[in-house]
Amino acid sequence: MNRTGPVHCRSEQEDPTAMTAAPQLARTAPAAVEAVLDRLRPLLGDRLTTSAAVCEQHGRDESYHDPMPPDAVAFAESTEEVAAIVRACADHTVPVIPFGTGTSLEGHVAALRGGICLDLSHMTAILEVRPEDMDCTVQAGVTRKQLNEHLRDTGLFFPIDPGADASLGGMAATRASGTNAVRYGTMREAVLALTVVTADGRVLKTGRRARKSAAGYDLTRLFVGSEGTLGVITEVTLRLHGIPECVLSAVCPFPGLKAAVDTVIETIQTGVPIARIEFLDANQMRGINAYSGTDYAIAPTLFLEFHGTEAFAREQVGMVEAIAAEHGATGFQWAETLEDRNRLWQARHNAYYAGLALKPGAKGFSSDVCVPISRLADCLADTAEDCAASSVVTAIVGHVGDGNFHVLFIVDPDAPEEVAAARALNDRIVARALAMEGTCTGEHGVGYGKMAFLEAEHGPEGMAVMRALKVALDPDDIMNPGKIVRV
Amino acid sequence: MNRTGPVHCRSEQEDPTAMTAAPQLARTAPAAVEAVLDRLRPLLGDRLTTSAAVCEQHGRDESYHDPMPPDAVAFAESTEEVAAIVRACADHTVPVIPFGTGTSLEGHVAALRGGICLDLSHMTAILEVRPEDMDCTVQAGVTRKQLNEHLRDTGLFFPIDPGADASLGGMAATRASGTNAVRYGTMREAVLALTVVTADGRVLKTGRRARKSAAGYDLTRLFVGSEGTLGVITEVTLRLHGIPECVLSAVCPFPGLKAAVDTVIETIQTGVPIARIEFLDANQMRGINAYSGTDYAIAPTLFLEFHGTEAFAREQVGMVEAIAAEHGATGFQWAETLEDRNRLWQARHNAYYAGLALKPGAKGFSSDVCVPISRLADCLADTAEDCAASSVVTAIVGHVGDGNFHVLFIVDPDAPEEVAAARALNDRIVARALAMEGTCTGEHGVGYGKMAFLEAEHGPEGMAVMRALKVALDPDDIMNPGKIVRV
Repeated sequence: MNRTGPVHCRSEQEDPTAMTAAPQLARTAPAAVEAVLDRLRPLLGDRLTTSAAVCEQHGRDESYHDPMPPDAVAFAESTEEVAAIVRACADHTVPVIPFGTGTSLEGHVAALRGGICLDLSHMTAILEVRPEDMDCTVQAGVTRKQLNEHLRDTGLFFPIDPGADASLGGMAATRASGTNAVRYGTMREAVLALTVVTADGRVLKTGRRARKSAAGYDLTRLFVGSEGTLGVITEVTLRLHGIPECVLSAVCPFPGLKAAVDTVIETIQTGVPIARIEFLDANQMRGINAYSGTDYAIAPTLFLEFHGTEAFAREQVGMVEAIAAEHGATGFQWAETLEDRNRLWQARHNAYYAGLALKPGAKGFSSDVCVPISRLADCLADTAEDCAASSVVTAIVGHVGDGNFHVLFIVDPDAPEEVAAARALNDRIVARALAMEGTCTGEHGVGYGKMAFLEAEHGPEGMAVMRALKVALDPDDIMNPGKIVRV
Repeated sequence: MNRTGPVHCRSEQEDPTAMTAAPQLARTAPAAVEAVLDRLRPLLGDRLTTSAAVCEQHGRDESYHDPMPPDAVAFAESTEEVAAIVRACADHTVPVIPFGTGTSLEGHVAALRGGICLDLSHMTAILEVRPEDMDCTVQAGVTRKQLNEHLRDTGLFFPIDPGADASLGGMAATRASGTNAVRYGTMREAVLALTVVTADGRVLKTGRRARKSAAGYDLTRLFVGSEGTLGVITEVTLRLHGIPECVLSAVCPFPGLKAAVDTVIETIQTGVPIARIEFLDANQMRGINAYSGTDYAIAPTLFLEFHGTEAFAREQVGMVEAIAAEHGATGFQWAETLEDRNRLWQARHNAYYAGLALKPGAKGFSSDVCVPISRLADCLADTAEDCAASSVVTAIVGHVGDGNFHVLFIVDPDAPEEVAAARALNDRIVARALAMEGTCTGEHGVGYGKMAFLEAEHGPEGMAVMRALKVALDPDDIMNPGKIVRV
């Protein structure tokens, strides 16, 4: 647990101003790609394309990392089609890069060696909702908003909310979480079972619908967070939750960062099952006011939400208000109606775009560390100081109930010194989190953007085991190659 | 999700009356074992033994499966010693069988190919408790009762309770759960990180203490439930929980099995965060009265527990009492004091021994299926009918909030027809659970006792992936060989 020495994550050969360059891996031989295309055309017709515009769009996510287009994009409509596509690629050793909504943030979908992008966004069938078991099975391309819309009349909802309207297959593949994770867990807890097409084109069911099982290795958790590097997730069975009888949301400014974070820490330690507790720094609040037309105080702020029966939700509110008052907070601003609540959380969800509004014309990229809650106050305070001393415009926002926060770096991509300063800041934030027994990514995942930090986090032993798993399940390295571990 | 055809789990060559015979695998060459012993003697001194009595005891768990002694037992005191032992065994291709308290139930510790039993029961150091993070790190030999005793003054507790006072390393290795899992989850959720000695004798930290991470493959969950077949767990970092302000426990008889189970199902569906909800059939209650000297009604019964603030615990009670009343239950019997509560749960925990009291001189073995909650009423009713029609004495007890239940078969081991009937009943219970999208083991694990059912549950694709993982991480098949998957 104590790998707390200095963290040297990057090689000396790298250009420090080229924050986001995709690694240069050998491109797949055109003849192999052609052979796959010839085989797939009869199956997919115009759902197989080599259009430059479509390929360009599919090699790019929402991050600032360099995109890399695939050689072709295949739009699959069923698990069987995915299996046929993977088998064709396996036969010719051509890479397969799964693609959901393209909202990932670490270069996950960049086709580093070319190959076939497997777009699952047509797989939008909600296969089964079982209200009596509080679970459902959906195709991988169903988005979280589509699912919640579909569930509206059942009294159930799917709580995991990473901000973007991501596909549930993609959320499983990246172990996504977001604002509700403090109460409802992450995709690690939400996924009951998966259907996965393995690297040899076989269809695997990773588990059954029982709430628990001790029947062998945990294949479900092996594929959750594997980012398409071990197989393609085509169907997801998810736990659902009852819509709470009572939902109470509030915004509360604090006299300082430490007061806000200490309120979070005490709330968690008191065992209040708070549904959301989000931190935003003063810069972030300034951006939100500018972007969303709100007039929140420009101060370190918590956005909070409480779920339960009315009596229990109000009891939780009383406990948290008391804790906040001890830390000098006085101005709880309640959102009483559904519309007010939606407006409040929409403002929170727009944090990224609001951050960009702090510096017109700039682009943003986001750090994503997570530390044990006892270290959160120190980690955030040191980070805020580091940010203030830097030339980079930053905004901080965090799912602080989990110890997870993001620093948004708002930089001019054409100013190399800004890019280099942001990159150095990001490296220091990761090193600080690792030194505090934290992780280099709480929820965004590895893609190719975070690979440089993995060995510092997991040590050579952890990387050796990850590499062994990758080689065992994808011996020809065709599944989203060049991500998580390089073999 | 729909592998619901007929389940043929056992080969035709097997003797149906030999319910528990250990598989006959080739024993390790004595010269190889001798070479390991020669190497380990200087390190371990009298903590290395080939005493027949000690070996006999270490090849046996609490189940009715045939034991199989190792060639020697090594008592390790540190991760470094475990690593040295594993390296010696790896160099000579000698099996390593980890041993905690020997309370497993599926032949997990039987040394099917001989080799070295690695006893971790001396590793009882509580390395660190971090109340502010609500977590702790312990050596693998610490038992759950030892940990809770140690935590007594911190206001925290470790909730997972499989009945036996098992070691926490063993509980992690078998993905244990028990009565509190409906509220607090299983070892899958409780383990934050592990220290594992891999098959090549390296020391792996599977994760950090952050509550969530998206940094690569989920190594922690890979080793949780791997039953010593991928590595030896030497340290466990666990989530802890605040001792609830208020704990309320009750026993309630029901007019019939269906009334009790429907009460459970509605309670779960209503979202009441009940801490324990345990079902016991009339036979089991008769055994408990005989064994524990209690005078509970001889009827299908629920044992319940509620945790929370006083107001919230009482609110939960009100909701469940209302549901139970709709199903004809009238006699909630409350345990008001800590002593009364302990007596109540001790009676529940003694269910296994109480079951044996139903037939003096008999031995017991236990089924362990888990189904989606919507199928629980049907699964239990069909199983109860099947048991009633059989010649075998049975008692049913279950962690029904999770859909998990056990049928205890109480048989004369010297009566082959009883053994055969119990074995056939067990096969039918597993087949029924699998047909209902359930699992062959909710919490006892696979060992060698449940291997015959794994392919029916996971399909050839699942078994192929499990085998690939085993070969990747233990290429020489020295880690608890012959369990979970045979390679």
